Amino acid sequence: MSSNFGNNIKVTIFGQSHSEAIGVVIDGLPAGKTIDLDKIQAFMQRRAPKSTAYSTKRKESDIPRILSGLVDNVTCGAPLCAVIENTDAHSKDYSKLRDIPRPAHADFPAHIKHSGFNDIRGGGHFSARLTAPICFAGAVCMGLLEELGVYIGAHIASVGNISDLTFDPVNVKKEDFKKVCQGDMPLLDSSLNEPITKLIEEVRASGDSVGGSIECCVLGMPVGVGEPLFDGLENRISSAVFAVPAVKGIEFGAGFEVCGMRGSENNDAFYTENGNIKTKTNNHGGILGGLSSGMPILFKVAMKPTPSIYRKQNSVSISKKEDTELLIEGRHDACIVPRAVPCIEAAVAIAIYDLMINKAKGEN
Amino acid sequence: MSSNFGNNIKVTIFGQSHSEAIGVVIDGLPAGKTIDLDKIQAFMQRRAPKSTAYSTKRKESDIPRILSGLVDNVTCGAPLCAVIENTDAHSKDYSKLRDIPRPAHADFPAHIKHSGFNDIRGGGHFSARLTAPICFAGAVCMGLLEELGVYIGAHIASVGNISDLTFDPVNVKKEDFKKVCQGDMPLLDSSLNEPITKLIEEVRASGDSVGGSIECCVLGMPVGVGEPLFDGLENRISSAVFAVPAVKGIEFGAGFEVCGMRGSENNDAFYTENGNIKTKTNNHGGILGGLSSGMPILFKVAMKPTPSIYRKQNSVSISKKEDTELLIEGRHDACIVPRAVPCIEAAVAIAIYDLMINKAKGEN
Amino acid sequence: MSSNFGNNIKVTIFGQSHSEAIGVVIDGLPAGKTIDLDKIQAFMQRRAPKSTAYSTKRKESDIPRILSGLVDNVTCGAPLCAVIENTDAHSKDYSKLRDIPRPAHADFPAHIKHSGFNDIRGGGHFSARLTAPICFAGAVCMGLLEELGVYIGAHIASVGNISDLTFDPVNVKKEDFKKVCQGDMPLLDSSLNEPITKLIEEVRASGDSVGGSIECCVLGMPVGVGEPLFDGLENRISSAVFAVPAVKGIEFGAGFEVCGMRGSENNDAFYTENGNIKTKTNNHGGILGGLSSGMPILFKVAMKPTPSIYRKQNSVSISKKEDTELLIEGRHDACIVPRAVPCIEAAVAIAIYDLMINKAKGEN
Amino acid sequence: MSSNFGNNIKVTIFGQSHSEAIGVVIDGLPAGKTIDLDKIQAFMQRRAPKSTAYSTKRKESDIPRILSGLVDNVTCGAPLCAVIENTDAHSKDYSKLRDIPRPAHADFPAHIKHSGFNDIRGGGHFSARLTAPICFAGAVCMGLLEELGVYIGAHIASVGNISDLTFDPVNVKKEDFKKVCQGDMPLLDSSLNEPITKLIEEVRASGDSVGGSIECCVLGMPVGVGEPLFDGLENRISSAVFAVPAVKGIEFGAGFEVCGMRGSENNDAFYTENGNIKTKTNNHGGILGGLSSGMPILFKVAMKPTPSIYRKQNSVSISKKEDTELLIEGRHDACIVPRAVPCIEAAVAIAIYDLMINKAKGEN
Repeated sequence: MSSNFGNNIKVTIFGQSHSEAIGVVIDGLPAGKTIDLDKIQAFMQRRAPKSTAYSTKRKESDIPRILSGLVDNVTCGAPLCAVIENTDAHSKDYSKLRDIPRPAHADFPAHIKHSGFNDIRGGGHFSARLTAPICFAGAVCMGLLEELGVYIGAHIASVGNISDLTFDPVNVKKEDFKKVCQGDMPLLDSSLNEPITKLIEEVRASGDSVGGSIECCVLGMPVGVGEPLFDGLENRISSAVFAVPAVKGIEFGAGFEVCGMRGSENNDAFYTENGNIKTKTNNHGGILGGLSSGMPILFKVAMKPTPSIYRKQNSVSISKKEDTELLIEGRHDACIVPRAVPCIEAAVAIAIYDLMINKAKGEN
Repeated sequence: MSSNFGNNIKVTIFGQSHSEAIGVVIDGLPAGKTIDLDKIQAFMQRRAPKSTAYSTKRKESDIPRILSGLVDNVTCGAPLCAVIENTDAHSKDYSKLRDIPRPAHADFPAHIKHSGFNDIRGGGHFSARLTAPICFAGAVCMGLLEELGVYIGAHIASVGNISDLTFDPVNVKKEDFKKVCQGDMPLLDSSLNEPITKLIEEVRASGDSVGGSIECCVLGMPVGVGEPLFDGLENRISSAVFAVPAVKGIEFGAGFEVCGMRGSENNDAFYTENGNIKTKTNNHGGILGGLSSGMPILFKVAMKPTPSIYRKQNSVSISKKEDTELLIEGRHDACIVPRAVPCIEAAVAIAIYDLMINKAKGEN
Repeated sequence: MSSNFGNNIKVTIFGQSHSEAIGVVIDGLPAGKTIDLDKIQAFMQRRAPKSTAYSTKRKESDIPRILSGLVDNVTCGAPLCAVIENTDAHSKDYSKLRDIPRPAHADFPAHIKHSGFNDIRGGGHFSARLTAPICFAGAVCMGLLEELGVYIGAHIASVGNISDLTFDPVNVKKEDFKKVCQGDMPLLDSSLNEPITKLIEEVRASGDSVGGSIECCVLGMPVGVGEPLFDGLENRISSAVFAVPAVKGIEFGAGFEVCGMRGSENNDAFYTENGNIKTKTNNHGGILGGLSSGMPILFKVAMKPTPSIYRKQNSVSISKKEDTELLIEGRHDACIVPRAVPCIEAAVAIAIYDLMINKAKGEN
Repeated sequence: MSSNFGNNIKVTIFGQSHSEAIGVVIDGLPAGKTIDLDKIQAFMQRRAPKSTAYSTKRKESDIPRILSGLVDNVTCGAPLCAVIENTDAHSKDYSKLRDIPRPAHADFPAHIKHSGFNDIRGGGHFSARLTAPICFAGAVCMGLLEELGVYIGAHIASVGNISDLTFDPVNVKKEDFKKVCQGDMPLLDSSLNEPITKLIEEVRASGDSVGGSIECCVLGMPVGVGEPLFDGLENRISSAVFAVPAVKGIEFGAGFEVCGMRGSENNDAFYTENGNIKTKTNNHGGILGGLSSGMPILFKVAMKPTPSIYRKQNSVSISKKEDTELLIEGRHDACIVPRAVPCIEAAVAIAIYDLMINKAKGEN
């Protein structure tokens, strides 16, 4: 089992790339909360395939249908279920993949795990399409977090060797998120839109794909959210974020740079400002001992290049145990990073709201 | 809550740095398994404070007492409880920290979270001392994993700017782990023992501390262990590893290097060797779609410098909301990395065994 | 939260009586299992409203639509989601109930719990209609349990003051279940069909309702299923069975009769028969120390009379805090017992399969 | 696994009858709560073996030692661990039971479940001695519930064929609990002390044992505690109460009497009294739709006679698969009911506090 997340809310994701539908059940939401479905739809649109160079040509309207949990768009305390129909699934493309696994995909271990009964069509339950219900659940949580003064924003930190600016670790503001969200490319430095689009287009034209990284920030956290040991903020955020396909690493605050630092450099000194306790620097990324310090939570994730490329690749026949070659067909993004940005936000929102739902109500 | 880990076993950690004792309960272990307490003790010794430059001067015998779960050293199906007495706690050292939080420690958010009732002595439940019961539980799991042909090893990847060798990602062998484990410094390149010891000694002499990184390998994994979405191997390993204090980042396989790679570079091609399906490279770090691929699982973690340094630091009075200075006393490691190596192994062992306990019995 | 059940599988129920749809997600099913949807549909039909005296006049086709988890009716290891549309909901009937709670219904505490935002239409998430997805999940589990040689059957033990026969506690057979299932009234003694139908008809005609009891048997259990303390068979079966509305008591084996017994009477002596270890009597109802003994699991549940009656009842205005009267409209069963029989079977099937899924694979 | 309970707190029980010690870890308690250890000790004393006719002759001081979680008797937010040493274990008494299971005990299924590796001494982890840590955890929860205005009391409802009075279902008061708790026999009608003591003495003298029942009340519940479907109050209370050995049935409110009732009799009419909404009768036992109605929660449990009797019983040799006889030695209660009364209170306290911890803080 794995498609469940949460200790205080329960988020259950279901569906395969080419099943009748995909969806999510969210249990444990407080009653009486207005859910802004237009805002959720707009958020999900950021993840949806675009008619641009870098994106899959699969077309799905991806309008979630609410089956339960709301009365006149207000939560009623019952589990919220949203379903997204799979209307544009081209199952024929995938038939030969049952025996010849795609490199860097889940095909081979899924085949062994499920004794060949896994749904191979479009990657089945391992498909990145499952990020659509994650985005739905994340958007619901983001709306509820906003009521608590908590805001989440992410942007492309790099594509290939082109790096964007980063948030100011001590002074990032809610308004910074807005700049980022405009346009197909969620970037801080809009002048990078052109070179990155060009890079992705070149990569795509050569039948290849390219990786990148995403920076994410959680703003407005009260102090003391999180739990010691196994349910600290780093643990819970990682738990959620690695559900987004292609994520291969995560680092908080100064991240891997801390390895080369001295304590005297890395320690973020406390000071007071208008009666608030803050730190002068933010190497700790807003998390101390697994708990929020009140400073912006900052982390970066590494996204591998889309594994589906349009080149002949070496693979094997699982049944014959012999080497073979594979040419993947189908529709795929040449760079998953732009569409993954809202997915990272959504995953973090679920993890944070799960920890906040009691905190917000005064639980220690 | 947070001191519980596991879906198929339940590991519950308890204790504070200066409470009567610390310990762990492990529920869900199969009956009839011989537990080698000498081996566990030897493993825990790798974590124990050493009489060397880099290590805290706190002396604890750290011999776990088994309260339940074993009959003549064989598991009986009941929860296994092990307790380690706290015999060398110097509580007086910490009195003034209740109001003046140590930079880069959990003191400040823990104070707010628990309304000032947190156990401030030695960091309380947030202390790195809690890694002792994690090591106990991990050693139990490692013993049981060995029966399944799974071996775990880790080593110092770097201290400050000195980097060690890394495991060969496709050919790492069980024997490689043995080299590493000898001596106080778990290194692959033993010639680095001297310069790293010297670096730590210099840092310590200057009242400072230094960070580093650890590489860990899980060998002998059957194919298909892990679950999609939220309980994939990356999710579960991260969940466990961030319980070790000072970890600020984790990357699997090629990790953050994937950001700059093309799909054609990063994709690990499958091939057959003596009827086994392998990959020629191991950028995926043994994990595809959250599931084990059968290749060695490889990951690195970033460890921040010990936050306790012997220099005057800027901090605040929580009660007075005003700036002040702090000089930390007590006994602390100038570099936590060497003693953290077995802690990382232990955390991973718990996460893997939790996923393997059913797999080993034929569950899909 | 509450709509989740299971430690080894996860059953998530969603929906309200008058929401767009109701349904269930089952996560953790093994891959490669054929699901007989016709058999499931036939099982669900036993719960569906009948055109008889005792049953609600609500008409729902109640054909579950499978959204995910199956490929050609075979489980693929991904969560199985089934949805049942609500097509015959008459929401207007319920409008005034928001302020005037129906006696013996959840209306009043649900109003307070959810600050008046609960879905009042048809009882919302507290409606007995939610037993439809429970029956779906139970039917899936029953099919998988049959592969393990485990069979579940239940029957009406009593309606009002008319009691049926009971299963022979030591010799109940699978064939006994078949007799029971025929006809609208699941009875062991078919001659009781007429007097019970007549009783219910009389009760209905007088605008009243009547209670009863159900006996359930689980046959073919291997020895040793269940866990000590909180996850014993009694604990888990109770946990599931009390999810069926109107259940107010449960007793295993000799049940409340044990209160008056001596140990020498109650203790079931072991003996051997063809190399099998059995007990001569079955006061323990197949459960010792929370674990299956290999004897038939037997228990009875008490079902209260349907709370919705067609008589003027005393109630209150929640908002005005004053006494008032209430006359309930809508469509309701005069006796819920006949339709509850498959619900009890389904609930038990989920609880047992959750404990068996690992046991079946050799887990201790 | 089974020795864990709770969704919002986590109670982990460990130990066997004759292991080094038994104990409990409680995770998730709020910080800043004073724990009255004298009161807890007094509560546990009610469960402890007495020097009376009906009670085991095992002598244990049963003073819990607090290993963690408290600083100066105040919770600090870290898991609370309490340990009780096993000092008076007579392991020799039990040696032959490994092959010849005691009727009505867990020996036989535990042997099969754990492949003969279960701890047979004194019943191991299945021993009623494990109710000592349950009582500790329950006493902690009862203390915290009192702060919320919630009180729990139980008494002997019957022993053999002698029945005590019952609580007045609509007017039970906190003071009623105090009467009950005095003396070794927790009875409402103190005149029954003599005949019940005499009955137990006679039963004991004849080498036999006798069953009985316990009535329990939870007073002061706010309206709306509990969750729909699987985590309703009946589900959660049953889940906890069946952890007490010898419980074979549970009924809430009118319980099994509802089977013979009409809706017009069973429905508890609402009315207002000084601005509060109450019911005139309490057949529902304070629970509607799994949620507290604000009326006293009332339930009864059936306790089977102590399975250990001093008479020759028929049993089998598990290894030889042949019939044999068994004469049990050791020290056992002739009637478990008096000592089980605080155990039932404790189990309910854990279940209720687990549901209340968030409710008390304003969670819906």
